[in-house]
Amino acid sequence: MSEASQTLDGWFSLHDLRKIDWAAWKFVPSEERQSMVKEFLNMLESWQETEDKHEGSHALYSVVGQKADIIMMILRPTLNELNEIENSLNKLRIAEYLIPTYSYVSVVELGNYIPPEDGSDPTENPEIRDRIYPILPKWNHICFYPMNKKREGDDNWFALPIEKRRELMRAHGMTGRKYAGKVKQIITGSTGLDDWEWAVTLFAHEAIQFKKLVYEMRFDEVSARYSEFGPFYVGNILEQEKVESFFHVQ
Amino acid sequence: MSEASQTLDGWFSLHDLRKIDWAAWKFVPSEERQSMVKEFLNMLESWQETEDKHEGSHALYSVVGQKADIIMMILRPTLNELNEIENSLNKLRIAEYLIPTYSYVSVVELGNYIPPEDGSDPTENPEIRDRIYPILPKWNHICFYPMNKKREGDDNWFALPIEKRRELMRAHGMTGRKYAGKVKQIITGSTGLDDWEWAVTLFAHEAIQFKKLVYEMRFDEVSARYSEFGPFYVGNILEQEKVESFFHVQ
Amino acid sequence: MSEASQTLDGWFSLHDLRKIDWAAWKFVPSEERQSMVKEFLNMLESWQETEDKHEGSHALYSVVGQKADIIMMILRPTLNELNEIENSLNKLRIAEYLIPTYSYVSVVELGNYIPPEDGSDPTENPEIRDRIYPILPKWNHICFYPMNKKREGDDNWFALPIEKRRELMRAHGMTGRKYAGKVKQIITGSTGLDDWEWAVTLFAHEAIQFKKLVYEMRFDEVSARYSEFGPFYVGNILEQEKVESFFHVQ
Amino acid sequence: MSEASQTLDGWFSLHDLRKIDWAAWKFVPSEERQSMVKEFLNMLESWQETEDKHEGSHALYSVVGQKADIIMMILRPTLNELNEIENSLNKLRIAEYLIPTYSYVSVVELGNYIPPEDGSDPTENPEIRDRIYPILPKWNHICFYPMNKKREGDDNWFALPIEKRRELMRAHGMTGRKYAGKVKQIITGSTGLDDWEWAVTLFAHEAIQFKKLVYEMRFDEVSARYSEFGPFYVGNILEQEKVESFFHVQ
Amino acid sequence: MSEASQTLDGWFSLHDLRKIDWAAWKFVPSEERQSMVKEFLNMLESWQETEDKHEGSHALYSVVGQKADIIMMILRPTLNELNEIENSLNKLRIAEYLIPTYSYVSVVELGNYIPPEDGSDPTENPEIRDRIYPILPKWNHICFYPMNKKREGDDNWFALPIEKRRELMRAHGMTGRKYAGKVKQIITGSTGLDDWEWAVTLFAHEAIQFKKLVYEMRFDEVSARYSEFGPFYVGNILEQEKVESFFHVQ
Repeated sequence: MSEASQTLDGWFSLHDLRKIDWAAWKFVPSEERQSMVKEFLNMLESWQETEDKHEGSHALYSVVGQKADIIMMILRPTLNELNEIENSLNKLRIAEYLIPTYSYVSVVELGNYIPPEDGSDPTENPEIRDRIYPILPKWNHICFYPMNKKREGDDNWFALPIEKRRELMRAHGMTGRKYAGKVKQIITGSTGLDDWEWAVTLFAHEAIQFKKLVYEMRFDEVSARYSEFGPFYVGNILEQEKVESFFHVQ
Repeated sequence: MSEASQTLDGWFSLHDLRKIDWAAWKFVPSEERQSMVKEFLNMLESWQETEDKHEGSHALYSVVGQKADIIMMILRPTLNELNEIENSLNKLRIAEYLIPTYSYVSVVELGNYIPPEDGSDPTENPEIRDRIYPILPKWNHICFYPMNKKREGDDNWFALPIEKRRELMRAHGMTGRKYAGKVKQIITGSTGLDDWEWAVTLFAHEAIQFKKLVYEMRFDEVSARYSEFGPFYVGNILEQEKVESFFHVQ
Repeated sequence: MSEASQTLDGWFSLHDLRKIDWAAWKFVPSEERQSMVKEFLNMLESWQETEDKHEGSHALYSVVGQKADIIMMILRPTLNELNEIENSLNKLRIAEYLIPTYSYVSVVELGNYIPPEDGSDPTENPEIRDRIYPILPKWNHICFYPMNKKREGDDNWFALPIEKRRELMRAHGMTGRKYAGKVKQIITGSTGLDDWEWAVTLFAHEAIQFKKLVYEMRFDEVSARYSEFGPFYVGNILEQEKVESFFHVQ
Repeated sequence: MSEASQTLDGWFSLHDLRKIDWAAWKFVPSEERQSMVKEFLNMLESWQETEDKHEGSHALYSVVGQKADIIMMILRPTLNELNEIENSLNKLRIAEYLIPTYSYVSVVELGNYIPPEDGSDPTENPEIRDRIYPILPKWNHICFYPMNKKREGDDNWFALPIEKRRELMRAHGMTGRKYAGKVKQIITGSTGLDDWEWAVTLFAHEAIQFKKLVYEMRFDEVSARYSEFGPFYVGNILEQEKVESFFHVQ
Repeated sequence: MSEASQTLDGWFSLHDLRKIDWAAWKFVPSEERQSMVKEFLNMLESWQETEDKHEGSHALYSVVGQKADIIMMILRPTLNELNEIENSLNKLRIAEYLIPTYSYVSVVELGNYIPPEDGSDPTENPEIRDRIYPILPKWNHICFYPMNKKREGDDNWFALPIEKRRELMRAHGMTGRKYAGKVKQIITGSTGLDDWEWAVTLFAHEAIQFKKLVYEMRFDEVSARYSEFGPFYVGNILEQEKVESFFHVQ
């Protein structure tokens, strides 16, 4: 790989957002609804087993606003596993009431990564393993958005020398570090995989920290001058034990 | 928080716009329709109780043009409360006839805010409390639109020094002040929360004042050079006692 | 109002465009269809009464191409009246077959208007009244499009001095004047009311004049350098007595 | 008309593109389908009679890819005739299965046209008549796309002096001439009529010639620097005698 | 053909992407579903026969994420054959459950091609034949995206001298060559055929190689400065023997 573009890649990631077709859902007889929710919970259970074995991870949040009702983020070693999960979900009976609204395919990445000089395998390093094969935190809130780096006239990220890019990313990282313990950030790369170049997934105890962090970062040169942002989705954690009441209707 | 990006944040806000599926609504038997409207009114009633306790606020307007039929703006202390309100609304029987057309998630903010030097808590200041935890006025008309500040070539708001931004916003505020008593303005920030950086919600006694204000402001340097505007929605107040006749069909 | 942004505002305007759901319409029994068309004609009748009293005006045209089948343009003194008209229309039985495709909210305006020095009320001037409270002509063809003035780099209309803007608009007016008697132009402003800054509605005896006028104007500096155009809609007059045959299906 | 914008206008043009709702079409009983196709063929027959009298022209092609299944291009002296044809088509029983996907309204034009100095009527010139009232060729393939001339910063077509525009168009014409006999080109103007400024409709014996021509032209200064292109549609001729088998389903 | 735009063209190509309407599919009785899948497999069989005779080629992959469930890429000598394949597919009973989501029409091309000086027919050269009439590899993963070369201000690909374009493409090719054996790339041209100028279809044994290749290439001047990218689709091979289980639902 060229020196200009060093990254270290980990698990593949699928963000899957759905609206609930409440109108149709209400017409399903109550016991059937319960049985469908049970099936959905079984699927979550099996995802949890995978996470417990550290062979993947996942998150489930309810989304605020009309863009979606739920967001699932799923991490797995291969694109095939993500595809199988997606197809299994689509074949569940409840899937008829879970209308797709947005999805995103990417891979967890460590950007501007410099490989060890001793030629050792970086994935043997536990600290690095934790970063590229992360267990997603169960914090109260999620924020997800895809983004590009600009290539417009004089504002062309990909035409900058690597030193300049490293310097700008380092300054950007300093802003992020102020939010340590408040916001946890997962960067996934998606060049060649989906419509934007990266996705950012943030987790926070307090939702207001998303605004504070993203707003403060917008003044960093790398954002102010070189970043383009896609749609933003925010949500609240939907714990497994609350799934039934979430889907409950009279 | 960096000096470059000071704001003071208050209540979270949800704008929720819906079209009415009149064709389907007409097929609902008259008593059922009345009972569904009653449920909707009960929900409004409970929102009013929250507002009376000053634990939130809300507004309901009918929208002119095909983009939506009604707009609800709801303010609450947390994103979770907004999510619950939204889900409760979606589970109402009438929700089947209220087709989502646009929504917006943001938080009431005081921009370019300088914290008190004595380190006192600004939210203890009643004047500031009224601005970040506002009770929405019951004026005749509403105007809502999201917006960005530009980051294009030489017109890059986020690359300006804070003094320049303060000066431009001060001049902009002068234009706004000419409309005191005619237009009331609620600014909500949405960086990291929704697709634009801010939302503007205006209330007026006379609808023509929206055009006068927004048009005059467009000549302010901050708008002319640095602002990007999303869709505009305008509407007329829909008082609780008029809800029944609004939904009435032969 | 600032000197930079003088306009004189008249009636509010609603453009309402609809497609006809011919497939469903054909399934309606013939007498019901006739009765629904009759209701629609009664509504047109009542609009005509308003126009006869000079308390508003309206136009009804059929649209060429798939973007819509009919366009209604309605002028009234208040936004509330437009909203009532829109809701009444949506509650008609025929509305189920009139699918909304586009709408536009604006207000008739006299741009670059200089108020009389003697402080007299301009709306007492009959010539000015005719321009801001116009009765729409019953000419053969309509052309409707929304537009913005650019704010891009060096091409920023709102950053130009008022003298320059007046000069450019004057030259633009000269082009328009060549089409006197051939094309009648209604300018409505929509800053703060809808997604573009202005709407232009043209009426002509011969449709080819729309192309000639708009094409010739595109070479005016104000258009070439400063104008952004939205979608264009063209249509043919649909006289009240032809409404029945228009809606007639086997 | 200003010297800057001379064109000579001929027949009005409607491009009408449809997808076939095959799923619903298959459920129609076989004899009904045949009877509906017969009705459609009768309409084509009547169009052919018009063409035989040289009072208009038309083309019918099947479209490759999912953007549409068929494209009809119809030329007539007036916008009213096009509107009637469109409404008649929409009222056919088969129209329920012909879902609109795109349409375009324009007028055949001779661009950069210099009127005869002797003041004679150019439409008396048979060569010119053939160009502005063309009978569409029945060649194997069609290619249709709308386009604009740019007005961006230094690349502003409408701000160029007429001599420069003529020179660029002349060079562009030279490229076109290399394809004489291989590609026939119909230019229609749509400023003031539809969303782009022109539409280009190409006919070829071999489909690969579309790619060769349009690609080669893209290096002409007028395209490289001043052209913006809309969606492209390509298709294969659908002769009247093949319409039945085209619509045939088991 | 002008020296500026030399390419050698081979087979026409159709990318056809579909979502499966799982909700409706589940309601089809099990034997009917099997019979429909059988029909689909028969079609694949006949495509395979064509490929075995080297008269075309095809690929079938399942797509990850909500943009589509399957992608078919089909190569044939003529646009008519592609159209027939598409229509046959649409007339299959299973087509009712295969909702179109995106398609792309293009032609396999050898870019910046210099014709042999001895005037010999390049398609007689077996190496060249293999490149313009390629049999698509049956590798594990596919990546497909359309793209343009920019024509914006100073970044105008089509205004560059041919030497500069050749030099940039040569450097770009060097990046590609590093992935020999890992990624196979099919370039198809679509100027005059579809909405972008080219489509890129990549095949890989490991999906992560798409990200590595496309990311590394983004730093090449030709991409950084001159490329615009459309939507990206990635997927996993769907072998014929797995089609039944892919479509299987309880």
